[in-house]
Amino acid sequence: MEKILIINTGGTFNKRYNPLKGELEVPNDNVALEAILRYCYNTHYELLAIVHKDSLEMNEEDRALILQTIHDHVAKRIIIVHGTDTMDVTADFLSLHVKDKIITLTGAMVPFSIDTVEATANFMLALGDVGVRESSGVYIAMHGVVLEHNTIYKNREKGVFQPR
Amino acid sequence: MEKILIINTGGTFNKRYNPLKGELEVPNDNVALEAILRYCYNTHYELLAIVHKDSLEMNEEDRALILQTIHDHVAKRIIIVHGTDTMDVTADFLSLHVKDKIITLTGAMVPFSIDTVEATANFMLALGDVGVRESSGVYIAMHGVVLEHNTIYKNREKGVFQPR
Amino acid sequence: MEKILIINTGGTFNKRYNPLKGELEVPNDNVALEAILRYCYNTHYELLAIVHKDSLEMNEEDRALILQTIHDHVAKRIIIVHGTDTMDVTADFLSLHVKDKIITLTGAMVPFSIDTVEATANFMLALGDVGVRESSGVYIAMHGVVLEHNTIYKNREKGVFQPR
Amino acid sequence: MEKILIINTGGTFNKRYNPLKGELEVPNDNVALEAILRYCYNTHYELLAIVHKDSLEMNEEDRALILQTIHDHVAKRIIIVHGTDTMDVTADFLSLHVKDKIITLTGAMVPFSIDTVEATANFMLALGDVGVRESSGVYIAMHGVVLEHNTIYKNREKGVFQPR
Repeated sequence: MEKILIINTGGTFNKRYNPLKGELEVPNDNVALEAILRYCYNTHYELLAIVHKDSLEMNEEDRALILQTIHDHVAKRIIIVHGTDTMDVTADFLSLHVKDKIITLTGAMVPFSIDTVEATANFMLALGDVGVRESSGVYIAMHGVVLEHNTIYKNREKGVFQPR
Repeated sequence: MEKILIINTGGTFNKRYNPLKGELEVPNDNVALEAILRYCYNTHYELLAIVHKDSLEMNEEDRALILQTIHDHVAKRIIIVHGTDTMDVTADFLSLHVKDKIITLTGAMVPFSIDTVEATANFMLALGDVGVRESSGVYIAMHGVVLEHNTIYKNREKGVFQPR
Repeated sequence: MEKILIINTGGTFNKRYNPLKGELEVPNDNVALEAILRYCYNTHYELLAIVHKDSLEMNEEDRALILQTIHDHVAKRIIIVHGTDTMDVTADFLSLHVKDKIITLTGAMVPFSIDTVEATANFMLALGDVGVRESSGVYIAMHGVVLEHNTIYKNREKGVFQPR
Repeated sequence: MEKILIINTGGTFNKRYNPLKGELEVPNDNVALEAILRYCYNTHYELLAIVHKDSLEMNEEDRALILQTIHDHVAKRIIIVHGTDTMDVTADFLSLHVKDKIITLTGAMVPFSIDTVEATANFMLALGDVGVRESSGVYIAMHGVVLEHNTIYKNREKGVFQPR
């Protein structure tokens, strides 16, 4: 099995409640992903946490860092855990600059710390898909479907990703 | 997206605690699967619950029923939720009789009702894989990997599925 | 068993995540309390939800409403679910105006929707205490202890209620 | 605050799933109680785990050990976490032999590991009550009420404790 690169960039997927501040935060760790990956005994992966932001705050530098990380890594198969609000922007950007890899972005509408099922479902859908997909490209894996990034969007009224 | 047939046959994945009996039971319903599939808004699937057993109690009739259900259904892509103890037996049986479909068996070491993450992770790994896999065959999706059924086994001492 | 009046005023105890807004909200319902009270088959209580606020936003009108509700009700034993930030302010106010009832304020540092245990523990501690306590007064039940309201405070650095 | 003695004797309250055996076990530890007591920062208690059994298997020796533990300890206020099936038997036995202490038995119909709320609710109800109760006796704290042990029973058809 080929090694899969998993890049954690934060977003709702990772948020946890800070009782001292009384609010949800994007922590500087991989606690949520590790709680899923602990059951993936057989997955050959490397996990890199490179950005820890709500995706609304993600900027060009952050996207350049994601791109650089992908370029520098030997892995051909890549999952990016990303906030849902600008997942499409990062996907567009990566599709312009990376042509020979299979990149799947995923995330969650509700933090793993509040609802383990949605976050686990989206991430594992991406993992199942990325292992056998044959065509290079940039994909989004959300809510039961993995599609080319520009054929799926976040319906902000319903809080659900849908095919265009 | 092609319609995926999901066959629920019971097993640990589905078990729930019955406080009147003081024990875990395989219920006659799809509560566990539905708690996952409620986030799969975009998945095109049909869910059939045809056996409700601990897989140690599964017999030839049950396996014949699973086979018949697969034969009778138009779907080419099939996920079977199955107890882990005889998952290999059912996979062997199906591989002898079905040649032109992509069948993936999955399950859990701990009931979804006790640990949502492992069960969700295994099932969604299967779902992600089955949607894009190209070669017909019978596969097992457990613990982070999807492999041809006869190349993975349940390590009963560790409680983990592993490649042979 | 005497009827206990339970007054829900919101606060962290009740907060739930709204995926459309991407933030925690104090909802206009009793979902959290009902998830606990569903196991209190034998408790004789009346549940009134009269304020739905983060306690930092609670004002004099809200406190007057709480007081009026207590005055108007026949119950001698009362639990108030309240935000932790101004629990002491409401307790001080009530202690000036109510002399002949047993009033216990409780709440949580983490929403029930994120951590069921802390919220359940605080509320049920209050319920266990209020049923048998004999002296009128205003009490705070938090983090394993029920004390007269002016002998316990919220340590904001530790996020824990402590005796003074 | 007086020190409270908490005696853990096992029962459903403590049960956890063993994936290697595929069944629920009463473990030799206090994991469930500690998951509740971690929020009881201010409770002055001593926790002793002396029996680890399904209460159907509890025998005269076990009950003698519980009695001896209570006699040997200075605490006047005692909570016993106990299986629900013979909670009444142990309560009867203790009421014959202990006259000057406040003893409250509690437990759960569903393990804490499966449903955190019921177990936490019952235990914390007992803790809230035992701290302020004035009359010696043997009590049962279950499902929202704390009553003298011989005035409450387990309704085995409904799976609920009820006043006689």
